Amino acid sequence: MVRTLQHPERDAITIDAVLSALADPVRRTIVTQLAGGHSEQACIAFDLPVAKSTSTHHFRVLREAGVISQQYRGTAIQNGLRRNDLEARFPGLLDAVLAAD
Amino acid sequence: MVRTLQHPERDAITIDAVLSALADPVRRTIVTQLAGGHSEQACIAFDLPVAKSTSTHHFRVLREAGVISQQYRGTAIQNGLRRNDLEARFPGLLDAVLAAD
Repeated sequence: MVRTLQHPERDAITIDAVLSALADPVRRTIVTQLAGGHSEQACIAFDLPVAKSTSTHHFRVLREAGVISQQYRGTAIQNGLRRNDLEARFPGLLDAVLAAD
Repeated sequence: MVRTLQHPERDAITIDAVLSALADPVRRTIVTQLAGGHSEQACIAFDLPVAKSTSTHHFRVLREAGVISQQYRGTAIQNGLRRNDLEARFPGLLDAVLAAD
């Protein structure tokens, strides 16, 4: 049985949750790395200045807000940026935030 | 003596504070009203679904984040949107957020 993680559908993504998720510098680091690099990356590939448990929390906040996707690949979790969904819901927002750092 | 309220200089406006400030629907209502109407409006002119003390808190969060300006005019406070400062710091961000609601 494949474990799956919950994600909001595109139409259920709210501006409140997205702005809250992006208001944190560690979470923006994750988003920036996903935006600039490979389309999908394991959590372990991120060089974050926080403890593993804290980083797990940040990934979860981003996923529940609809900013990233997370999927199990064996025991690892692969992360992807939901760029198309974000652009469809809030045009220009992600690029404006990415340009700010 | 004129009472003044503290505002961050343009360069001291941070993306963390702006995104946090805009992540709240009541605060976005204030910003939307300022963006769409007169350039400056008294707090009393906003029809907000919260108690006065709560609304005062929301105005303060917006001011301290650098999103709005607040100035005493007699006993009332006039609010203005810092559109130019926000656009200079984070181009496109305010419009993307305003379009989301």
